[in-house]
Amino acid sequence: MSKKPFNIGLIGPGFMGRTHSNAYRRVSNFFDLEHTPVLKAICGRNRENAQAFADQWGYESVETDWRKLVERDDIDAIDICTPNNLHAEIAIAAAQAGKAILCEKPLAMNVEEGLRMVEAIEKAGVPNTVWYNYRRVPAVTLVKKLIDEGRLGRIFHYRANFLQDWTISADLPQGGAALWRLDAQAAGSGVTGDLLAHCIDTALWLNGSIRDVSAMTEIFVKERMHNLTGQKEKVTIDDACLFHCHFANGSLGQFEATRYARGHKALYTFEINGEKASVRWDLHDLHHLEYFDHSDDSVIRGWHDVHVTDGDHPYMENWWVPGLQIGYEHTFVHQVADFLTAIAKGQPCAPTFRDALETQRVCDAVINSANSRRWMDVD
Amino acid sequence: MSKKPFNIGLIGPGFMGRTHSNAYRRVSNFFDLEHTPVLKAICGRNRENAQAFADQWGYESVETDWRKLVERDDIDAIDICTPNNLHAEIAIAAAQAGKAILCEKPLAMNVEEGLRMVEAIEKAGVPNTVWYNYRRVPAVTLVKKLIDEGRLGRIFHYRANFLQDWTISADLPQGGAALWRLDAQAAGSGVTGDLLAHCIDTALWLNGSIRDVSAMTEIFVKERMHNLTGQKEKVTIDDACLFHCHFANGSLGQFEATRYARGHKALYTFEINGEKASVRWDLHDLHHLEYFDHSDDSVIRGWHDVHVTDGDHPYMENWWVPGLQIGYEHTFVHQVADFLTAIAKGQPCAPTFRDALETQRVCDAVINSANSRRWMDVD
Amino acid sequence: MSKKPFNIGLIGPGFMGRTHSNAYRRVSNFFDLEHTPVLKAICGRNRENAQAFADQWGYESVETDWRKLVERDDIDAIDICTPNNLHAEIAIAAAQAGKAILCEKPLAMNVEEGLRMVEAIEKAGVPNTVWYNYRRVPAVTLVKKLIDEGRLGRIFHYRANFLQDWTISADLPQGGAALWRLDAQAAGSGVTGDLLAHCIDTALWLNGSIRDVSAMTEIFVKERMHNLTGQKEKVTIDDACLFHCHFANGSLGQFEATRYARGHKALYTFEINGEKASVRWDLHDLHHLEYFDHSDDSVIRGWHDVHVTDGDHPYMENWWVPGLQIGYEHTFVHQVADFLTAIAKGQPCAPTFRDALETQRVCDAVINSANSRRWMDVD
Amino acid sequence: MSKKPFNIGLIGPGFMGRTHSNAYRRVSNFFDLEHTPVLKAICGRNRENAQAFADQWGYESVETDWRKLVERDDIDAIDICTPNNLHAEIAIAAAQAGKAILCEKPLAMNVEEGLRMVEAIEKAGVPNTVWYNYRRVPAVTLVKKLIDEGRLGRIFHYRANFLQDWTISADLPQGGAALWRLDAQAAGSGVTGDLLAHCIDTALWLNGSIRDVSAMTEIFVKERMHNLTGQKEKVTIDDACLFHCHFANGSLGQFEATRYARGHKALYTFEINGEKASVRWDLHDLHHLEYFDHSDDSVIRGWHDVHVTDGDHPYMENWWVPGLQIGYEHTFVHQVADFLTAIAKGQPCAPTFRDALETQRVCDAVINSANSRRWMDVD
Repeated sequence: MSKKPFNIGLIGPGFMGRTHSNAYRRVSNFFDLEHTPVLKAICGRNRENAQAFADQWGYESVETDWRKLVERDDIDAIDICTPNNLHAEIAIAAAQAGKAILCEKPLAMNVEEGLRMVEAIEKAGVPNTVWYNYRRVPAVTLVKKLIDEGRLGRIFHYRANFLQDWTISADLPQGGAALWRLDAQAAGSGVTGDLLAHCIDTALWLNGSIRDVSAMTEIFVKERMHNLTGQKEKVTIDDACLFHCHFANGSLGQFEATRYARGHKALYTFEINGEKASVRWDLHDLHHLEYFDHSDDSVIRGWHDVHVTDGDHPYMENWWVPGLQIGYEHTFVHQVADFLTAIAKGQPCAPTFRDALETQRVCDAVINSANSRRWMDVD
Repeated sequence: MSKKPFNIGLIGPGFMGRTHSNAYRRVSNFFDLEHTPVLKAICGRNRENAQAFADQWGYESVETDWRKLVERDDIDAIDICTPNNLHAEIAIAAAQAGKAILCEKPLAMNVEEGLRMVEAIEKAGVPNTVWYNYRRVPAVTLVKKLIDEGRLGRIFHYRANFLQDWTISADLPQGGAALWRLDAQAAGSGVTGDLLAHCIDTALWLNGSIRDVSAMTEIFVKERMHNLTGQKEKVTIDDACLFHCHFANGSLGQFEATRYARGHKALYTFEINGEKASVRWDLHDLHHLEYFDHSDDSVIRGWHDVHVTDGDHPYMENWWVPGLQIGYEHTFVHQVADFLTAIAKGQPCAPTFRDALETQRVCDAVINSANSRRWMDVD
Repeated sequence: MSKKPFNIGLIGPGFMGRTHSNAYRRVSNFFDLEHTPVLKAICGRNRENAQAFADQWGYESVETDWRKLVERDDIDAIDICTPNNLHAEIAIAAAQAGKAILCEKPLAMNVEEGLRMVEAIEKAGVPNTVWYNYRRVPAVTLVKKLIDEGRLGRIFHYRANFLQDWTISADLPQGGAALWRLDAQAAGSGVTGDLLAHCIDTALWLNGSIRDVSAMTEIFVKERMHNLTGQKEKVTIDDACLFHCHFANGSLGQFEATRYARGHKALYTFEINGEKASVRWDLHDLHHLEYFDHSDDSVIRGWHDVHVTDGDHPYMENWWVPGLQIGYEHTFVHQVADFLTAIAKGQPCAPTFRDALETQRVCDAVINSANSRRWMDVD
Repeated sequence: MSKKPFNIGLIGPGFMGRTHSNAYRRVSNFFDLEHTPVLKAICGRNRENAQAFADQWGYESVETDWRKLVERDDIDAIDICTPNNLHAEIAIAAAQAGKAILCEKPLAMNVEEGLRMVEAIEKAGVPNTVWYNYRRVPAVTLVKKLIDEGRLGRIFHYRANFLQDWTISADLPQGGAALWRLDAQAAGSGVTGDLLAHCIDTALWLNGSIRDVSAMTEIFVKERMHNLTGQKEKVTIDDACLFHCHFANGSLGQFEATRYARGHKALYTFEINGEKASVRWDLHDLHHLEYFDHSDDSVIRGWHDVHVTDGDHPYMENWWVPGLQIGYEHTFVHQVADFLTAIAKGQPCAPTFRDALETQRVCDAVINSANSRRWMDVD
């Protein structure tokens, strides 16, 4: 086993930090790669938390100041799992330090910030990727393949939802620790950046660019206790966001994200209707793809329920045997595998920062459209 | 509208009487037939009930003695909807009177009775059919077509269940009126004749004859109030019946019927596994057929969910438009349409009495096997 | 059987004419009503077609001029099944003649026409209803009941789609006979009036009025052969229409209708997310209701798959027994039953013309919003 | 991180070896345990293969003779992943050497062998468990909890299937390497020990002991090329096995396993019908549990589709957040976690060898019943 070590410094020992750490630890058992990730350092503002995280995941060292981490010579890549408002500063510093960068989504607080990040990273010429992990659900990757093979033909409709219900209770506070996603200061936006951004990333990848959008947002619970102030504060993030749009290829898009859809935990779904075939997918059963092919014999034509666990499905030959499902966490393993493969080949690993900037442009247009009650071009 | 009248005399103004009456009334609106059924007479022991039924359904006359009905010159066909213990006597008399006969299932109380019925009817040469209506669910008819086209190839497995839950409560009485199905005197057997017989009829039609069976039956609630005696009486029908078997074509069968499957109302299901393709169907969603075809491209291979409502699906061009489902009652309309078509062509209409006798043979073998705890040949 | 005859004169012997005729013929077999519908006269411009329809369905007479029909003394009710551009003229004349009126949806070509119809009918004081039949799918009626009982609590989201795929082929012509729905002259609009109107009617009934809308429409195939001119003509109806909206109760709506959703025949779906519970329904499995109740014990909490076939479900005690499904056509039977019940009680039968005018207002706002690319108030 | 090392010596670097190695590597990241497994040694007859496996999974050393492994002082536990015909010899030796033992299922080639294993292990007093991993799918563990809480009430029916289709092709050879499962010398039986044994283990756990069985087996492809002899040889394993049975609690069981069910890869399913509630589960969607509760309000009563991913579901608080599914491999992690927890507490970890012996008794009775065509008592 003469693999090259690839030393990771991860900032943000929280939920996303766990998913990434797990991916780094597992990838070499399942994928044959030139590099093997090494959990070199974890960085968190609270040393005790960071140390506990290091113990749990086997990080070799702990930092409490991300700037120090970025300056360390023994670090090959910086993985940014902080709240969104820190992405830009860290990424730009890491780029300047010549580190490879893996950044949690969404890329930035807004397009302006994102653009500075892209410029920094491209100037530095460092490998980079943004963790829009759902591209690498095997069923979703399969959709990309089916589209590229021309199986769907001309696309007419693209529909995507991301439905959750965890913020319905008015007693849930906002801000601080695990709840920074409810705080516009830390998150930039609500469901738009947190959930819709995933839908948009997949859509741009599968169906090309979006031309213009008409959106609406809503805040259902107007005030919540704030964990940092101890006061009831106005809620400033969007609880729900809907938009429709024109894609550049002439198809129509319809999108929605909300945390007020009782009965859904993390129901990211999309459906694409093409002239020749259609596909449907949802995250609650991520190992399935529904596929309708108009060229099937008419009497037995119907939606195929494809159990995406066969050896010829994307990524699946690396796991178990047909019929045995994988889960959420594997998408991160796939992204690490692809990132390391890309590095070995000297190629970019999508979605790059530049790809993610496109998603940011759509998010900004959506928010602007909702605020102005007007159609907005994406540019 | 110069259609020939086809005069029906129906015996038994109960639940099945309703389904048949509805079928006679509707068939000419949807199927282009030489004959049109006329509801000539309803026969029931209780005149008041029979009259109310006649009023509801538009029968021209009422009889209380089935022998009188059978003798009437203005009757072309006798429809037998009585409890099972009267089928033989009525059918034989009707055959001798030269009437066409439509008999509710199961054919008889046992093979001996059934054989006499078949002999009588074949001697008389009268048109005849038994109401195993589920053959004529469009999705089930479609399965027959797929098998006949060779799409499934060699068959390995046939599985069928008929699951209900309406007799779980120990407070439910047995016998009399609507509850004759719980009385062995009137019904012959319990779930075997009532539910399994449907599964067996379909199986024989789709997969050929059954060679031998190994069965078990159970009575979960041993005593129930009897409506006719007013006493707690021993329950003599089978509450549940399971068997496995060899089909003549070498495939293996597994069957089960019960009225103790909490959560299922009338869940008749079957699945057939062939070398090249498999099918699945259930009565709770009778307008769907699930179909798996191994010859599909591997990456998009999966069970097809066929919404059996297109114009090229069996019977469906006579109804509405694609996507709009029909229901339970339509199966009876189809059987009337096919029966009248067969009469016009001078052909038999399956399942004939002789076909139904085969089902009876399997039912008897099943009961015998369960009682003796031994494999039984079907012969 | 001393039921009062209720004499129907139906205009338009086409697809909808069949569904209504079937409903009139069946209702008395299943519902205990004071009146029994009599198929007195069918009216169609082509006498041969009309006569064939009369023969098929048992109409006593044939008319070729609807004005004559409206003037006949032996007609109690006029049923309007013509293309949309004739609704207003016929309905107003029928009202003036004192007839009860059952009008196919959508009510009118636009709000102005609809308003004149409502005024005429209210001035005449005649019984009236519009055939938004999907309200009377038992599962949909059940949703209304659940909402009225307060089971959903505050509503956050309402989503509805109506997806078809029958016009994808560019070879399909427009106009004339069965294809008047593709001709703006006859239909007024495309999917907006044909499909979205159903979604809107249900939404207004279940979730109250809509305040404002932002819409987009699209014509995917710009030119088609026209059956009446024999030329390629510009397509003027909308192939697809999407909108989002605010309901008066503060919830957000998202709607879409299209005839370019490959794989869907008549997939009308809706989902409603409330604070306490959510519901989902679709027309391809119309006998199911999916229901999520947050008050269920957490470990067994999940979407209930309710097979809406029990005796305590709306309308179902009139049909068969639990587990046995009904279909599309029964919704029309239910509407006739309710209409005749309302007449017997001297009450209105929703949706009345006035109710349907509200739907028309939303449709007009949707079309205006799409054309102007601006939010439109509904008023 | 002052965890006690727990040194594993694993025999059999094949498919099951991978699943176990993965489990040992991951458990400490997700479960807070006293011990942490250390991959001390891998043992395989082919050194090259074993070394490659060691490299892939990080084993510290390689052995080619399992007897040497068993004698090593630095090994705490022996994990047996060999073909079935080696289980007994290895397990007995390991017990005598005082090692904890984790043995792949089925326990043994037959009851006689299994009994010797149990005696050895109980005499030695070593911790032991058998890898019937499906007990630890969270949804399956939840079923156990629901039954123990009395939610199902008296059980009437237990149904289980294990359906695969990978041996349909007559061109598939038997024997050697990955195909030892098709060789009776190595496997003991075919689907009975490989697949049905899983169904039986779960059934005994959930529904108690089985009293008697009536079974049938079949070999569909009678001869196959044998990889070890290079000749066409008679196939001696069972391709399919069906049985029904009485449970000691009075309920009826129906079981089937086959590798000839076209369309199913690894479809292990079971359903349990109780007086008060029923449950259904299948391995192709292992993160779902279907649950029907008769005590639900009748109008909204239906099967609950429980997405078993909430924090209060078994094992799930150790993984991600609600809505995010885990997969097949996690069941092994759970078994390691429970085994190490049991060791820390000095308690047994079910299924123990003795538990697995019960499963073996049923398997033997099933094979005997099939061979003799008679009911067989389990004892």
